[in-house]
Amino acid sequence: MHHFSDSLATAVTARRSVVCVGLDPTLEGMPPELVEKYRPRVADLGDEGAVAACFQEFCTGVIDAVADSAACVKPQSAFFEQYGAPGWSALRAVVRCAHQYELPVILDVKRGDIASTGAAYGRAAFGGAAGLGAPVAGLGADAMTASPYLGDDSLTPLVAHCADGKGVFVLTRTSNPGAALLQEREVDGRPLYLHVAELVARLGAEHIGAAGYSDVGAVAGATSPEALRLVREVLPHAFLLVPGFGAQGAGPDALEGIAAGDAAGYVVNASRSIIFAWQRDGGDFRRAAAAAAETMRSQLPYAR
Amino acid sequence: MHHFSDSLATAVTARRSVVCVGLDPTLEGMPPELVEKYRPRVADLGDEGAVAACFQEFCTGVIDAVADSAACVKPQSAFFEQYGAPGWSALRAVVRCAHQYELPVILDVKRGDIASTGAAYGRAAFGGAAGLGAPVAGLGADAMTASPYLGDDSLTPLVAHCADGKGVFVLTRTSNPGAALLQEREVDGRPLYLHVAELVARLGAEHIGAAGYSDVGAVAGATSPEALRLVREVLPHAFLLVPGFGAQGAGPDALEGIAAGDAAGYVVNASRSIIFAWQRDGGDFRRAAAAAAETMRSQLPYAR
Repeated sequence: MHHFSDSLATAVTARRSVVCVGLDPTLEGMPPELVEKYRPRVADLGDEGAVAACFQEFCTGVIDAVADSAACVKPQSAFFEQYGAPGWSALRAVVRCAHQYELPVILDVKRGDIASTGAAYGRAAFGGAAGLGAPVAGLGADAMTASPYLGDDSLTPLVAHCADGKGVFVLTRTSNPGAALLQEREVDGRPLYLHVAELVARLGAEHIGAAGYSDVGAVAGATSPEALRLVREVLPHAFLLVPGFGAQGAGPDALEGIAAGDAAGYVVNASRSIIFAWQRDGGDFRRAAAAAAETMRSQLPYAR
Repeated sequence: MHHFSDSLATAVTARRSVVCVGLDPTLEGMPPELVEKYRPRVADLGDEGAVAACFQEFCTGVIDAVADSAACVKPQSAFFEQYGAPGWSALRAVVRCAHQYELPVILDVKRGDIASTGAAYGRAAFGGAAGLGAPVAGLGADAMTASPYLGDDSLTPLVAHCADGKGVFVLTRTSNPGAALLQEREVDGRPLYLHVAELVARLGAEHIGAAGYSDVGAVAGATSPEALRLVREVLPHAFLLVPGFGAQGAGPDALEGIAAGDAAGYVVNASRSIIFAWQRDGGDFRRAAAAAAETMRSQLPYAR
């Protein structure tokens, strides 16, 4: 049986990289050449197709550039959803592009709902069987992020896709300042996010791949290294998806001590500091992104 | 200034109804006439356009039927997202159809993310200004549901749209069995969901409309009447969006005592028990939905 965690482990070891490139396209971040190409259509009120095409060209350009130095990519659904149907089609094209390089795609959607709604979110991200003999193609992602607030019955419809080689990353301790408001609240003597981590451990126990990792991982931010280490203690076999690196302020030190197994057991996301590197470093956006990803790869403990 | 809460209050009082019709289309729930019409195309592997067209015809038919007895409708994004770009277009068409009847549309997406991502989710649901002089049309919804797990900085980008006449319903105590796992955990002597309710009160305090309600409301399930009443205590001025009625098991008694103000201050969602009423009652799906919505309207305390 194929496991998502094995694909991710292979991607990490083959490239000796734990870099996850976040694909968060914004109009403000588009390089001049793309602005010039698409502006006549973008300036038309409501030409969603033009913006979507621009985002697609940008994101596939970044993927081409980072394919050797990144372990995976993480498209952020929100930026595509803004542009309606063309945006959704562009997102699907971005997933396909990453697959051409055998880069696992973690779809950042932070979804979570119960029963048939949860199942529909799973199919939207991964594809799968639906009614009337009509399979759903979905976005074809390899893994998705999920929010735990609704409880375990909002996660099980997504975890069910692990049997089809898919993965789920559950939000535990996120990297934003507001994360403390709920996630750090003390419940039975421990922060809430560790209760979520225990839920992740329970959900993932039956989905361990050949490389020793579970297909159910956790999102735990680099901006709180202490929380990151506590999550690792609860989840010795999980891949951790670590945001907060780069533009959000955390450095390589935050990752010390959280490795697990032969393939690091974590990936570190950076979005703006890689995809918009051309704004800081100048030159071609692809070349700037490639250089930024390679620099990040070499800075992180796993590659050293 | 226009307030979402005033639109919803007007819809409630004009129809003397607190019924929110959840639009959760599934292939299994499509009536024979639509199955027959679309099956030749649906059976084609991956013909997303056919399923989306089928869902659109079904949902707009339901809206036509319940327009006099429902206070608002709540399309569930997941069911449309499954079918990619055509699904997204169908969802937009459903929103437009509801607006023809001046029915407020609460988009059930349970989103939540920070900074530019959160802003993008807001624009995807509501529309709004983006970069390069290119406004985003979005889905044109009047309100959206949001998940609080990431904290206040994941809600503020959505609440910002209240200034444009939009509303936000934050998940507090949901109606599913798993809700207790996190939401009921005791934090500083009170369940977590009441801390979320306090956050909702704080976020909504500056967005009170002429009818006395805030544009920032809360989702609180009818399956836990005690929780519903405690949420109301913390949120005397909020509209509550109450799921769990009908197919999920709660009856009218669960609503006793939670009214606030002249326009009830709550709406009660039912999805399957209304939109799939034809499966139970037979006959035309529109007529069955109309009858089910009218029955529910008359059963709820506000109309009695």
